[in-house]
Formats: sequence, structure tokens, C-alpha cells
Amino acid sequence: MVGRPAIIPNGTNHDMSDQGPSHDQPARIGIITVSDRASRGEYDDRGGPAIRDYLERVVTSEWNADPVVIPDEQRVVEQTIRGLAGRGCCLILTTGGTGPARRDTTPEATEAVCTKLLPGFGEAMRTVSLQVVPTAILSRQTAGICDGALVVNLPGQPKAIAECLDAVFAAIPYCIDLIEGPFITTDPDHIAAFRPTR
Amino acid sequence: MVGRPAIIPNGTNHDMSDQGPSHDQPARIGIITVSDRASRGEYDDRGGPAIRDYLERVVTSEWNADPVVIPDEQRVVEQTIRGLAGRGCCLILTTGGTGPARRDTTPEATEAVCTKLLPGFGEAMRTVSLQVVPTAILSRQTAGICDGALVVNLPGQPKAIAECLDAVFAAIPYCIDLIEGPFITTDPDHIAAFRPTR
Amino acid sequence: MVGRPAIIPNGTNHDMSDQGPSHDQPARIGIITVSDRASRGEYDDRGGPAIRDYLERVVTSEWNADPVVIPDEQRVVEQTIRGLAGRGCCLILTTGGTGPARRDTTPEATEAVCTKLLPGFGEAMRTVSLQVVPTAILSRQTAGICDGALVVNLPGQPKAIAECLDAVFAAIPYCIDLIEGPFITTDPDHIAAFRPTR
Repeated sequence: MVGRPAIIPNGTNHDMSDQGPSHDQPARIGIITVSDRASRGEYDDRGGPAIRDYLERVVTSEWNADPVVIPDEQRVVEQTIRGLAGRGCCLILTTGGTGPARRDTTPEATEAVCTKLLPGFGEAMRTVSLQVVPTAILSRQTAGICDGALVVNLPGQPKAIAECLDAVFAAIPYCIDLIEGPFITTDPDHIAAFRPTR
Repeated sequence: MVGRPAIIPNGTNHDMSDQGPSHDQPARIGIITVSDRASRGEYDDRGGPAIRDYLERVVTSEWNADPVVIPDEQRVVEQTIRGLAGRGCCLILTTGGTGPARRDTTPEATEAVCTKLLPGFGEAMRTVSLQVVPTAILSRQTAGICDGALVVNLPGQPKAIAECLDAVFAAIPYCIDLIEGPFITTDPDHIAAFRPTR
Repeated sequence: MVGRPAIIPNGTNHDMSDQGPSHDQPARIGIITVSDRASRGEYDDRGGPAIRDYLERVVTSEWNADPVVIPDEQRVVEQTIRGLAGRGCCLILTTGGTGPARRDTTPEATEAVCTKLLPGFGEAMRTVSLQVVPTAILSRQTAGICDGALVVNLPGQPKAIAECLDAVFAAIPYCIDLIEGPFITTDPDHIAAFRPTR
């Protein structure tokens, strides 16, 4: 659970040790904060730490975080997702860049690098957020599979991150089983991971 | 709130004064009726007037309508959306052409001209319509951003239009803020526009 | 209601009498089991028979089944859907291949051959399945129109098939009317087919 956020400039990949996926090693989880202001240091990244706090409370099997802070550039988001998936992350959570504004391109980047899309994640997260704010329909969050990683877009607002993860996390460990990633366990007091019996 | 529907032939753009988007001017709202029969005059356009009635009840800031009646031709729908967005509309509402029949191509036209799609609008409108009729799942309504305009597909049936607008309108003024359009206010007795505090 | 499942090898089309769509003839319904193991005979096909049982209980107008068992190969799924649509099926129901695993490509095949997509089917089926299991969000089920056929992806698990069909079947006969297929009637004790009055 170490690793400080790497503030990486536009178009540059951050340094990560080269490592393929494995079932015996701790799960590697990529955390991508997509924010022009946070990546320029004008603004503290609060989305990335909110995701990490959530994982610390919920995931009981061993895991390591690969946190990154990048600008709202579609090409950079694509390269970062591909880079994290290629280096063995089984789960990549993004925060930010899912709205309708000109610079919001996280969903487009996600769709561009994923070979399979999972529309149920976006639907479930918007349904839950819609209980809280009517503007939840403006979120374009999606999810998909990039190499051996499940990629899930989360909102930018820290308070909405836990709400959205609560709506989908019970299905994440089984999804990672299906894409041949590590076996992830959760604290049932927070989230009971569900694995259907065949 | 003037402007009579322009019945425009296949492939021809209707005449509108050339005008870019601005924050000080009244909001320009495009209303596109997509219907072969209405565009040939065989049938009265009832969808366009139902949208306008709704806006008259709900929107309290200044606005002007740009109403158009066009046939179910994907290319014409695309040109009409692009034309209205290019002439400064911040919101474009379509009615008709969202079903599964051969001539229904409004969603395809919308996807073709929008750089960002907003799947939450279609989901929310289908969820609400599904309370009324089980055939709501046949509606392929979507929404997206074309230049500086939010484009939202509405059903063809006038009685379903207010239902669908009620399901999404609270989020529309803030969406238009995010795409740098005019500040729109609503009558809270009908719809309370929601703008999240940052 | 005759016809035994044809176990067809990779890339080969199964033999069906050439027949175009017609309003007077019984409805032809394609039932495609997408499963590597079932297509190799390692495993009994249970999805296809579950779909057929459902149709026998629910559809009261005349119909014939065209059942096929094929491997999880996107190209084979595409060819099979196209073949069944070309031979006059008005409805094609698939089972299997909708998850996030590497071999699951039924939704991609469906999107590749359909000219119109109907996202409301997937949304409604996931919403209903989500009442039962949180992993319902992993299902990538979709629906669309391929020639004169409505194509609907169903889950692989037999017990989930009836749940999903119950969520959407009331809208299927009217959808088939809209794409100019045969007039299908249902047993209202199971599913009341809904046709809106214009």
C-alpha cells in the first residue's frame, strides 16, 4: 500500500518496474487522477487518496497501489491506462474527466483502449448517484477490459467516489477472476464480494 | 419565443440568421421534429409544439426557439443538428425517429454529430417511461454534445415528451454551464434546476 | 416447434431451408447457444432448451425454432446471426458469451451485425438481474436489429434466462410489428404483449 502519486507531465509515461500479471503476487491496482489543475500542482489531488482510502477499508487480500496524476488529455489517459495494464495491474480506477465539458475525455480514452466494454458499471453508478443529485445523468462513466485489467471510471468529486464504489465493488473480485487476475478478498462488513456458484 | 416551424425539404438547410453563442444573449433552443409525414404536411406536427409548451412553462430566463420539421433521413437530421449548433443553439431537442423501425435514425444521426455522448439521459428517460409502458425499452433515445449544444432525443408521442423532460431537465441548465452556454433558470414549481456546489 | 440443435463446427454454416420473411407464415425464432464446451459436446446445452421452454409457455401464435449451438468465436456468432436473419427469422435469441472473459464476444458480434442497437434491453435485463446477484453488472447483454430480425442477448445461466425474458418480452411482439415481422401473440397469464394505441 505504498507509492506516492507521480505527477507526470503531458505525454510522458511515469516510471514503473516492469512486471507481468500473476496470481500469487499481491494485486496491483492503478489509481489514475485525471485533472489538469491537480497535474499542474495548482490543486491537491483529493480523488486519488479517496480511492486509496476506500480500498484500504474494503480489500483484505494483499495489494499495492500505482497512483498517477495526469492532465485531461485523452492521449495521456489512454497511454496511462495501457501502461498500467501492461505492467500487471488487474484493476485500474480513474477519477475525474467524466463530465460533458470540453476537457473531459476519460470515457473516450477508456473506450479507445478497452477491447470489451461493461456498460452495467456506468448504469449502476449513475442510478446510485441519481438518488443524491439530479446531475448524475451528466456523468459519462464507463468500464471495460484493457489487457488483463478491469478499468472503472469514477467521478471526480471525492464524496461521490465511495458511493459509486459501493454500487459496484461486490462484483469486482469475480470480474477479476474471470479475466484471470489475482484472487481478491474483501471485508464483508464493508462489501461482501460475490462469486456465483456454477 | 417566436418563430414558426420551417418545413424544410430533404437535404436543404433552413434559413437562420448567422449568430455565434454568447452568454449575454437569450438562449437559443433548437426544436427538431423528425417525421416523414409531418415534413410532407400529411400530418400536423404535435411533438414540436409539445416541446415548446414545456419550455414555456419551465424556463424563466430569456430564450428563443428555432423550430424545424424534417423527414426521417439520417443525413438531414445530422445537417440540421450541426446547423443549429453552428448558429449558436445551446440546447437542441429532437422529437421522433428513435424507435426500431427502418426509417428511425435520429439516435444514429445524434451519435454521428456529437463528440461526446451522455448515456445517462437515455437511461433516465427509459427508466421513467418504463413506469408507464413496457415498450419504453424500444426507445433508442440518446444525448450528446455537438459543438456548444447539448442535444437530447425525445420520443415522438407528445404525451411522452413532458414525462421524459421531467426526468432530465433539472440537470440541463448545469450541463449548459459546463459547455459554456448561457445561464438558464427554471421555475422551481415545475423543475428546480440543480447546480452542485464545488 | 421442431428442429434439433445443430452442433456446427467453427466457421461452417448449418443447413437451413432458404425462406424469406412473411407475415402469414409462423414466426421463425432463432435460438443460438454460444458455448465452446457445448459446441464440442463436452457439456449439455441447457441455455437453448431453457429459451425454447420459455417460448413454449409464453408464445400462443404459431412459431418454429431454429436452434443452433456454436463456439465462442465472434466471426461464427456474426455469421450465424446473419444467416438466421437472412433466412427469415424475426427474432433471434442468443444465450452465453456476454461476460467479461476473453472468449466472451457475443455482444461484439451482435453490435457488428446490427444496424440499430436497442440499449434499453440490456439496461432492463441488468436492472432485473441486479435484484438477484450483484454480478449482474458484469453482463454485457445488448439487443439490436439485423435485417428483419430483433436480436436479443440472454445470459448463459438457464435460471437467469426466464428472469431476463420476463423483463423484456412484453415489448417484443410490438418491436417485431415495427420491423414488419409476423404478428406474435402471448399468453397473458405469463406475459401480456403490449401494443401502444397511436
